[in-house]
Amino acid sequence: MGRDLHPMSLHFVMFIPTIQGQSDDEQLDEWLSLAIARGIIGTYAQTELGHGTNLKNLETTATYDPKTEEFIINSPTITSAKWWPGGLGKSSNYAIVVAQLYTLGICRGPHPFIVQLRDLETHMPLRGVRVGDIGPKFGFNSSDNGFLLFDNYRIPRSHMLMRHSKVLKDGTFIAPKHSKLSYGTMVFVRSIMIKDQATELAAAACIAIRYSAIRRQGEIKQGSGEVQILDYQTQQFRLLPQLARSFAFMFAAYEIRDLYMKVTEQLADGNTELLPEIHALSSGLKSVVSWEAAQGIEQCRLACGGHGYSLASAFPEIYAYSVGGCTYEGENIVMLLQVARFLMKAAEEVRGGKARLATICDYMAKPNSAHSFMTQWDTYSDEHIVHDFEQVARKQVFRAYDILKRHQQESSAEEGWNRSSVELCKASRMHVRLYLVRTFLEKVATAPETSLRVPLTDLTRLYAFDLITACQGEFMKSGFMSESQLDAVREGIYRCLERLRPNAVSLVDSWDFDDAELHSVLGRRDGNVYPALLEWAQKSQLNRTEVKMSSTLLVS
Amino acid sequence: MGRDLHPMSLHFVMFIPTIQGQSDDEQLDEWLSLAIARGIIGTYAQTELGHGTNLKNLETTATYDPKTEEFIINSPTITSAKWWPGGLGKSSNYAIVVAQLYTLGICRGPHPFIVQLRDLETHMPLRGVRVGDIGPKFGFNSSDNGFLLFDNYRIPRSHMLMRHSKVLKDGTFIAPKHSKLSYGTMVFVRSIMIKDQATELAAAACIAIRYSAIRRQGEIKQGSGEVQILDYQTQQFRLLPQLARSFAFMFAAYEIRDLYMKVTEQLADGNTELLPEIHALSSGLKSVVSWEAAQGIEQCRLACGGHGYSLASAFPEIYAYSVGGCTYEGENIVMLLQVARFLMKAAEEVRGGKARLATICDYMAKPNSAHSFMTQWDTYSDEHIVHDFEQVARKQVFRAYDILKRHQQESSAEEGWNRSSVELCKASRMHVRLYLVRTFLEKVATAPETSLRVPLTDLTRLYAFDLITACQGEFMKSGFMSESQLDAVREGIYRCLERLRPNAVSLVDSWDFDDAELHSVLGRRDGNVYPALLEWAQKSQLNRTEVKMSSTLLVS
Repeated sequence: MGRDLHPMSLHFVMFIPTIQGQSDDEQLDEWLSLAIARGIIGTYAQTELGHGTNLKNLETTATYDPKTEEFIINSPTITSAKWWPGGLGKSSNYAIVVAQLYTLGICRGPHPFIVQLRDLETHMPLRGVRVGDIGPKFGFNSSDNGFLLFDNYRIPRSHMLMRHSKVLKDGTFIAPKHSKLSYGTMVFVRSIMIKDQATELAAAACIAIRYSAIRRQGEIKQGSGEVQILDYQTQQFRLLPQLARSFAFMFAAYEIRDLYMKVTEQLADGNTELLPEIHALSSGLKSVVSWEAAQGIEQCRLACGGHGYSLASAFPEIYAYSVGGCTYEGENIVMLLQVARFLMKAAEEVRGGKARLATICDYMAKPNSAHSFMTQWDTYSDEHIVHDFEQVARKQVFRAYDILKRHQQESSAEEGWNRSSVELCKASRMHVRLYLVRTFLEKVATAPETSLRVPLTDLTRLYAFDLITACQGEFMKSGFMSESQLDAVREGIYRCLERLRPNAVSLVDSWDFDDAELHSVLGRRDGNVYPALLEWAQKSQLNRTEVKMSSTLLVS
Repeated sequence: MGRDLHPMSLHFVMFIPTIQGQSDDEQLDEWLSLAIARGIIGTYAQTELGHGTNLKNLETTATYDPKTEEFIINSPTITSAKWWPGGLGKSSNYAIVVAQLYTLGICRGPHPFIVQLRDLETHMPLRGVRVGDIGPKFGFNSSDNGFLLFDNYRIPRSHMLMRHSKVLKDGTFIAPKHSKLSYGTMVFVRSIMIKDQATELAAAACIAIRYSAIRRQGEIKQGSGEVQILDYQTQQFRLLPQLARSFAFMFAAYEIRDLYMKVTEQLADGNTELLPEIHALSSGLKSVVSWEAAQGIEQCRLACGGHGYSLASAFPEIYAYSVGGCTYEGENIVMLLQVARFLMKAAEEVRGGKARLATICDYMAKPNSAHSFMTQWDTYSDEHIVHDFEQVARKQVFRAYDILKRHQQESSAEEGWNRSSVELCKASRMHVRLYLVRTFLEKVATAPETSLRVPLTDLTRLYAFDLITACQGEFMKSGFMSESQLDAVREGIYRCLERLRPNAVSLVDSWDFDDAELHSVLGRRDGNVYPALLEWAQKSQLNRTEVKMSSTLLVS
């Protein structure tokens, strides 16, 4: 299992292809050739100190001056400082800067410009550019995330990236043909993010499960010796659902990547039909997966007790890095509300009798079902599991829809939306969970018939049952599931834990993480944890001398 | 609001009182006087590399040698290394070391010994003592948590702390009269921990709520300007329950401290009756509060978007510090299982017709109730709320009891316990939540009649309704609450959010945190966030020079 470059560094890697063919300036090409030869470092500067989510209100300006055929890039306020771009602080020579385009006295909204920041010889910031590091963070401390301010800094007209919108020499503005084309890149970045989050969760599960087979603590039967802590039901209940999630998320990541490829082909033919659907799906997956992966990683860490708290475990870095994904590339709650816009439109169509729904929403037009067909956990079929998740998702989508309509009637469209937003987020989550469960079941059902099929099927059950139990109130509504059915689901969880226990270490080994990739003392493949912990501790900076000069200070 | 010394440093502060009167050696007293004069640094060394939870199996030995009247302290294995004590690595001159006492060839179990580790003049470790720092951790990095190994290190007989057990000169062992007396200290430390966790959550809520009143992003009504993000229902839903929790936890902390005082008075009279009850309660509160506080702190951080991820916000440190509380002073799942032992004993008594239950468990003997009396959220009385939480807690306690009995019949007492342990933890959580809700309601109901009463009452409702919604499946079981009742509870949440919104900043200001205590750029009392963020960033170590020498390395 390889851990890919982080998506935040994608801007970095994608810098050159992104700008290729988007400008027609020869000098720019020359500069870039030079820069490439020396190793160009570029970044994408969009977010500002005062604006992340509401891009429309970015404050950086790019005012076109037809006399000199230049744009004047300016940061009019402190809050307009660009903030967060990775590699911006001390490394980047260039940035794609998103700024409000003003031409002929009219604001045309945010547009991208390629801006040189530093001298290619001396690496000093150019005149009119103020740039620096934004300081230490929870994670990502090997990246110099930066701030950037412009003081009426001039760039040639051709440095605006003009594939979509254009500004002619005289300042005439030409609007883009398709307003949603940029969604494609967002979908791609999010599909990589989902794989990345799944991989981090898999790494955490690998470390925790291996350690739990090494650590012995307490006895289950008196006098029969201390047991591996993985034999405790509570430990299995903490860890094995994380293993199931990491598989579910990984399958979803591959599925969304394939969908992206399909959409890209269609886009080449000018067909944007699938774009809203896949954009909503990738936004929702990004939100649910990043949060559940982060939560899962913390459970893995906590399950390793005190040793999980040490940096030797690698958990603190994995968590701090991974949980960043809840915020970047679209804050999670904002993402869920975007999904909800899409769902409410679909709900409107269903209520209006229009049946032309995207595949991913077709469950919304199916008739309601009175009861779950579940009887015993081990005869609960894929089809019935999907059927039940569809029912619960449908119910919450229309519940949110009805609440929204009521609130909108009582106040205004916008105020009503705000007053319904917690219910709307809940609908989005159920929609995404249905997708995750269905994809996981489909992928395992169509996997080759090997000995892996049984534990993978148990993982699908554990995943689905864990979700049902977590939202049991939703499954109980209108008597859809009875208490005895839910008891059977819980029983299914406990039986899956027992069944998966013997294969748990093999399953995490199947990810094939290398020790150098995990860099976790607890997760070592050879299990030689305790001597390695003592060895690791001895390398602590504090241990360089037997007596610290500061000890006397500590005493006072 | 003062933030107390961390409980992990309590061992430090409590070092001298702990050992006073526990030994009768004059030379020891002399040493300690000397050490006190120079500023003694002591620590409590119990946990080992291989054993934290299962104290019975600690490996460090203290073997009595009647010839020299000394104990020989030894670390026979790598896993017997003492691990984690705060201030042990480089600072402590002394430690209370917990070791397996051997006398006359018989193991008498773990006992505490006072052991000098370092020379008081040179601060060098004494011969036979190997001590060092355990390396960087998630949080607590200003503390030199340490490891400690002994190589047949001799200490005088009188250095055993003999208030409870004794070893006479000839090696005769005298067992303690009361085996549970040490519970008292644990209760005290946990009551401090709960206050500490509540304070950290309050600090996080303070930062996030203040910042959410400063940050403007997006519009609710088009054209009417960007709104404070605290006006979004989703933001209120993330933050205000954390505010409610911090009050609930703080009230519980004061209540448990009072209970501790009461128990201490009783203990002075040799009455240990209340001890098991308060020990179980404090263990359960420690577990539930530390986890919910940590979760709440992360919600506060996430609600501040990218800026919450910067160390400038103070959230990363607050989280990393606070979440440690889920592990130290008794791992949370182990704590919940301790509570469950107590609850199952009580359940056994109720089923056996014995009615002599501790006050805190008296709900277990009450008859089951068929329905919640809730009709509208604003007429849902304190009494009815408690009634409903009692019903749900009782139901889960007896559900767990029945599952336990069945599993124990099918297998053995121990195996049955393990197979029921997830259900047992759930029962413990419901028991603790009932206590938290009841205490919060009682404290607010008996608070002075001031203008604060209304928002505090709203906070109690928000707290209770949020819990009901989170466990709605439990409240729906056997038709105890109907869907329309649960809808009314959800409606109550949304109304409480609206009602609390105008007072939210005043409520967090009421904690009276000083800017220097919060040390958060986002949580500044004056709200001057953005210039302060830019100023903070400029202090980043990376900004000391305009061009980093390493930049060329980053390029390659």
